[in-house]
Amino acid sequence: MENRPAPSGERDPASIRSMPDLAPTLVDQLDTPSLLVDRDVLDRNIEAMGRQARERGVDLRPHFKTHKSVQIAQLQLQHGATGLTCATLGEARVLADAGVEDIFVAYPVWPGGPKKQLLRQLADQVTLSVGLDSTVSADALAGALGATPGSLRVLVEVDTGGHRTGVRPADAGALAVHAARLGLDVAGVFTHGGHSYGLGDAPQRAARDEVDGLAEAAAALRSNGVEPRVVSAGSTPTAMLSATGPVTEERPGTYVFGDRQQVAIGSCRDADVALTVASTVVSRAVPGQLVLDAGTKCLGRETQPWLEGYAEVVGWPSVRLERLNDHHGVATLHGAGDDAPGVGSVVQLVPNHVCPTVNLAQELVLTRAGEILDRWPVDARALV
Amino acid sequence: MENRPAPSGERDPASIRSMPDLAPTLVDQLDTPSLLVDRDVLDRNIEAMGRQARERGVDLRPHFKTHKSVQIAQLQLQHGATGLTCATLGEARVLADAGVEDIFVAYPVWPGGPKKQLLRQLADQVTLSVGLDSTVSADALAGALGATPGSLRVLVEVDTGGHRTGVRPADAGALAVHAARLGLDVAGVFTHGGHSYGLGDAPQRAARDEVDGLAEAAAALRSNGVEPRVVSAGSTPTAMLSATGPVTEERPGTYVFGDRQQVAIGSCRDADVALTVASTVVSRAVPGQLVLDAGTKCLGRETQPWLEGYAEVVGWPSVRLERLNDHHGVATLHGAGDDAPGVGSVVQLVPNHVCPTVNLAQELVLTRAGEILDRWPVDARALV
Repeated sequence: MENRPAPSGERDPASIRSMPDLAPTLVDQLDTPSLLVDRDVLDRNIEAMGRQARERGVDLRPHFKTHKSVQIAQLQLQHGATGLTCATLGEARVLADAGVEDIFVAYPVWPGGPKKQLLRQLADQVTLSVGLDSTVSADALAGALGATPGSLRVLVEVDTGGHRTGVRPADAGALAVHAARLGLDVAGVFTHGGHSYGLGDAPQRAARDEVDGLAEAAAALRSNGVEPRVVSAGSTPTAMLSATGPVTEERPGTYVFGDRQQVAIGSCRDADVALTVASTVVSRAVPGQLVLDAGTKCLGRETQPWLEGYAEVVGWPSVRLERLNDHHGVATLHGAGDDAPGVGSVVQLVPNHVCPTVNLAQELVLTRAGEILDRWPVDARALV
Repeated sequence: MENRPAPSGERDPASIRSMPDLAPTLVDQLDTPSLLVDRDVLDRNIEAMGRQARERGVDLRPHFKTHKSVQIAQLQLQHGATGLTCATLGEARVLADAGVEDIFVAYPVWPGGPKKQLLRQLADQVTLSVGLDSTVSADALAGALGATPGSLRVLVEVDTGGHRTGVRPADAGALAVHAARLGLDVAGVFTHGGHSYGLGDAPQRAARDEVDGLAEAAAALRSNGVEPRVVSAGSTPTAMLSATGPVTEERPGTYVFGDRQQVAIGSCRDADVALTVASTVVSRAVPGQLVLDAGTKCLGRETQPWLEGYAEVVGWPSVRLERLNDHHGVATLHGAGDDAPGVGSVVQLVPNHVCPTVNLAQELVLTRAGEILDRWPVDARALV
């Protein structure tokens, strides 16, 4: 637990997230809503996770779905990542085409339609692993691979409390045997402790569940004669909490940018938030509110029972983003009154959940000390 | 009110939406999640709205943000639309580049950053109108246009009960005078009765509010010496409900595809739903549920207090899509049990709100009688 950053309101005074008043020279270059990424904070997050994984002696395989940026994937590899995780074969193709050689699609991939050929092609091109949680899928995957099922690694997914996908840990052995008999390369087991997203000790409890479930699943493989080379856990809240025990690999995603829910549950500090949404106030015609140009088609509509509204309005705690339409973010002025930002002002938002927000954007605007450094495309946006 | 389609469970037996079991030849061509559009239903919706507008003697200016497809915009123009509505200058640029000559950005456009030059360029290229609800914006728009403010039409937005953007109807005259003095071409007034999205008589009440507010605003312009050429109302639920009275133009969007909320509030019939999401069952490992490959990065996370879950699972009323993650749609099996679709099955979903779903997709797969006709790109996806 010692590697866990202390939850605090601490801010990095040089970071974009600490600049409620963006410089006019920056604003003049923004086609809002725009996603701003503080390069120094990004680098620090990537380095810190790389270092922590090294110190713990686990492999780090960050999740690509958070940023979908080839440049950021390459930074992660430069700072110790052993490969990338992604959610779709479309993302895997982008990574493979960018030269990433070891890719895990941590998803129960079904090789239907054009995915069948893409799977075969990727398994030829790179070291490809996919998730597996049914015999039906194992049969389909082996069928898709044809004469070379061993070119595909599979990791048996186990449900360790998230109750989304994955077999019970005790059932992992039988599924591993089924897959191995089909000639698939059964590399090990994995889980996602999605129930880590909660207040209090939810992250700690989920991390324990991950470790316990993975240990049981790994034992189930061994007792069926399959040696697990990979025992993979993952989520940003749990990534550095797991007892090293059986875990050989962690797959955090959101840590590169941080977001409002990660701050709320204590997985990162305010100072670690690298991404904000620059948004223009377009209307103050209706009393008691202001309207931003960031709606659901920019932010998504992500909420948590323990978060108020759809995003933090940086520097304006009394301005609460309580209602979203496609292109309108309607913020209520709780006492902010006439001092609140006027029409034409550009504010920054910290989204509740950064992954859907990035998937809705065309590019990331990289900044340093409040100036634009570069623009990186969201390469794998909307790829299935 | 006579033009309003009767709310009913009526189905078109030839439509894609009525085919819970898609033909294997179709499924083999789908990279799910995929957006299927029934061409016949689409054509029928476009023709019907064109005909109804003609019969009522109002101009039809459909909203581009629903489909973001140049091909569909062109169909709308072929069937009587006098121009297109859109929400962003990025969408307007796509339309202008496709040869659409009359475009209304029904949004309080702020000409910041690169939008300043784009606004000037579009105002030169096409007949461009934008929304206006503040003197600050009027000043900025006139400033952006420089020596030719009259090349930009503005419509004063009035709040007729949606309480999002727009001045009070009585205040429209003063704003119109301010804009006219700056040399902007004040073409009239507009509103969006967003409070039409509700059960019972919400659409009818909103339609009355739109008409009353627009009549008051138009009178306010006249009494200030500005003759409104355009009096524009809009939303799919209210489009055909307004007393013609002062209204010269309607701006419905969602009617091209329909969606679950439009069916629920009686704005379209089941038979009018042209768009469904084809999604593969990827997991049934956790008892009592199935997991689809359509999550928030495909469907968005749109809800209504009066709709259960995030989408209808076509043909499976007992399978309820109650939980979404980025790439997982978790559906609970309420009594569907073992008969429910197994891993590898492809089901169809009717999204609650179709606009964000389309914005998340790369293409629309056009179908007729259950076969693929064509694929159209979502041209203006994610453009701000």
